[in-house]
Amino acid sequence: MALIVHKYGGTSMGSTDRIRNVAKRVAKWARTGHRMVVVPSAMSGETNRLLGLAKELQPSQVTPQSLRELDMIACAGEQVSVGLLALALQAEGTPAVSYTGWQVPIKTDSAYTKARIESIDDTRVRADLDAGRVVIITGFQGIDDRGYLTTLGRGGSDTSAVAVAAALKAAECLIYTDVDGVYTTDPRVVPQARLLRTVSFEEMLEMASLGSKVLQIRSVEFAGKYRVPLRVLSSFTPWDINIEEEARSGTLITFEEDEKMEKAVVSGIAFNRDEAKVTVQGVPDKPGIAFQILGPVAEANIDVDMIIQNVSRDGKTDFSFTVPRNDLARVLDLLRASVAPSVGAALVDGDARICKVSIVGIGMKSHVGVAARMFSTLSNEGINIQMISTSEIKTSVVIDEKYMELAVRALHLAFELDRESQTA
Amino acid sequence: MALIVHKYGGTSMGSTDRIRNVAKRVAKWARTGHRMVVVPSAMSGETNRLLGLAKELQPSQVTPQSLRELDMIACAGEQVSVGLLALALQAEGTPAVSYTGWQVPIKTDSAYTKARIESIDDTRVRADLDAGRVVIITGFQGIDDRGYLTTLGRGGSDTSAVAVAAALKAAECLIYTDVDGVYTTDPRVVPQARLLRTVSFEEMLEMASLGSKVLQIRSVEFAGKYRVPLRVLSSFTPWDINIEEEARSGTLITFEEDEKMEKAVVSGIAFNRDEAKVTVQGVPDKPGIAFQILGPVAEANIDVDMIIQNVSRDGKTDFSFTVPRNDLARVLDLLRASVAPSVGAALVDGDARICKVSIVGIGMKSHVGVAARMFSTLSNEGINIQMISTSEIKTSVVIDEKYMELAVRALHLAFELDRESQTA
Repeated sequence: MALIVHKYGGTSMGSTDRIRNVAKRVAKWARTGHRMVVVPSAMSGETNRLLGLAKELQPSQVTPQSLRELDMIACAGEQVSVGLLALALQAEGTPAVSYTGWQVPIKTDSAYTKARIESIDDTRVRADLDAGRVVIITGFQGIDDRGYLTTLGRGGSDTSAVAVAAALKAAECLIYTDVDGVYTTDPRVVPQARLLRTVSFEEMLEMASLGSKVLQIRSVEFAGKYRVPLRVLSSFTPWDINIEEEARSGTLITFEEDEKMEKAVVSGIAFNRDEAKVTVQGVPDKPGIAFQILGPVAEANIDVDMIIQNVSRDGKTDFSFTVPRNDLARVLDLLRASVAPSVGAALVDGDARICKVSIVGIGMKSHVGVAARMFSTLSNEGINIQMISTSEIKTSVVIDEKYMELAVRALHLAFELDRESQTA
Repeated sequence: MALIVHKYGGTSMGSTDRIRNVAKRVAKWARTGHRMVVVPSAMSGETNRLLGLAKELQPSQVTPQSLRELDMIACAGEQVSVGLLALALQAEGTPAVSYTGWQVPIKTDSAYTKARIESIDDTRVRADLDAGRVVIITGFQGIDDRGYLTTLGRGGSDTSAVAVAAALKAAECLIYTDVDGVYTTDPRVVPQARLLRTVSFEEMLEMASLGSKVLQIRSVEFAGKYRVPLRVLSSFTPWDINIEEEARSGTLITFEEDEKMEKAVVSGIAFNRDEAKVTVQGVPDKPGIAFQILGPVAEANIDVDMIIQNVSRDGKTDFSFTVPRNDLARVLDLLRASVAPSVGAALVDGDARICKVSIVGIGMKSHVGVAARMFSTLSNEGINIQMISTSEIKTSVVIDEKYMELAVRALHLAFELDRESQTA
């Protein structure tokens, strides 16, 4: 039978009862002859608890040394959950062994709190699989070449699971979460939202980057790079559900160009309320101005998302970009204090009450008029578009955040996402 | 300046405020130029919390595999506390780095949950000390030759600290606890109990083995083997107490024969209420009988402490021994079901309402009549002695547990332990 990787999130591991259910589910898969590797997150709330303790004690100035200690502390959460899951499997009569990232080892760079996986040695894991044991590996963490613990950043367990699946050439990586799979949009906003049976890797990448919280974006990148078949499904179905049914449930992230031919033009609608808009008005339109404005922002370690520069009028232009909402005050201080005077800008303005709404679909590549339909739909609802940004498979707009639900519902209806794919 | 090892117990590490105090104390030592290594326990309650979770999930049958997972889980507690202490030191402006046992590495055998330290590599720690950093090492844990995590058993952090001090040839190992040091007896039983300025290694070993909870017995054995100067002192003095005063406080465990010349005949009185007495009556007095009775008890993994066999009468003898009180029922079942019939014993009897009271003193080696004074003191109080056991430096008696406080107070007075040493 096939080698399968299961990944369970913090909610699925949230109590001893839930861990017991995870064990029963994994044991069921193992009994059918699958070679099983499991990557669980820390019990829900545990990582926050640990980092909360750290926050009370850490130096006011962040240093590589203090970040390394944060990783030392944060790694403890997953270490506990793998041990507990191994015990629960053993109690089910299923031989199991747990490993931390450093025991495998999963090697990473030394970017503490946001390390990247460099290599995974599969020798030890394969030996256990060959001996008939379920292997449980900590998510979220690894070891650098100096022997220090590292973590992969929030949601890093998804990436660990996909990386392990890639290293072991697993037949499939199943990501068990507290949702049923990937929806056309958030069902809390649009009750008619529909579960997608399949979604292309590129679409999933855009959805993750646009704020859809189902999968960590780096795990999707990893899956794309190593072509790991990935499935998102619910850990809250009964553990003893028929295994064939379970194996077909949720959403499969595909890499097959063929399948896409029959797909809808637009697959889903993503939205993000975590950004704010910054506008630098009346900037002299000359070479180097974008760098003069954004360089200092990047240096302050602030992520910039959408960037828009209008054509100039009278030798002056307006320059807009979005940043994480939490960073807005810092960015405005920075620009007003030093950047605006030096580039001769007339005004620096910020707006936190915006949201980004995006339509995503691999079909957009080959269909004209998709963006136009988006704009006309919003116009019909009287929603003003503040910024536009496009890629091959998505179109994003920034609008006033008070129109977010309205925009998402109107677009969901306009692109007929509540119905099964038109051409399928 | 000297290389000093500090060990802090779980109570001293029990909250972020307390960890901050530990950091201020260690920073004070580092500022005076000492090379500092710190071994903290897990935050109080944390190891119990983790093992409680494990208990809910573990298989009913204990196996080496399940014990290994328990160690995986239990190791997380100290991993968090070393990281937190490193952050707190960094916040004090004192460079600090934390290591787990496996990072040092501290190598142990594979006896999960009660492993023994085999070797400590000091290369990495020395490099950090040379670079001016405080090095913080997890207590209680190590790594076996297969790369699995191990723990040293309850109180193992004391042993870790002493072993690290031995490996680094530290000038002194300071064990910070929630008591002021070693007392002539438990001050909760005898308010006149006096803090001992020094106590010999042998006496400390007897006191630990007799139930005095100040230090784990294996840490004392380790200190004796490697002649590590050990001091027990309070972590609840203000952190900014004068450092010379602090360095002289508490109780120093000594190895110098000379000092003992001036010591009191009896240094302390230990007691233990955790044992029960088993008597096998009317056993035929022939070779091999002790083994026939105690062999099955040892096989059942039950510790036997005192063993007494009386001279025989009419070819029959009575055989008595003490076991941990928790194991009494199991021992009685075992003996009655199979052992007693096969050796032809007349009766197997058990008594859980006993206690062991011991006088300990290096001076007993060279002073006659000490045991006699003990027996007469108990006799004057009307206390019947059920069993007696002696070694070079201690005399233990088993009595009815209801007389325990009375016996300890009477002996404390009889040996004048409330006064400074008579000959000092």
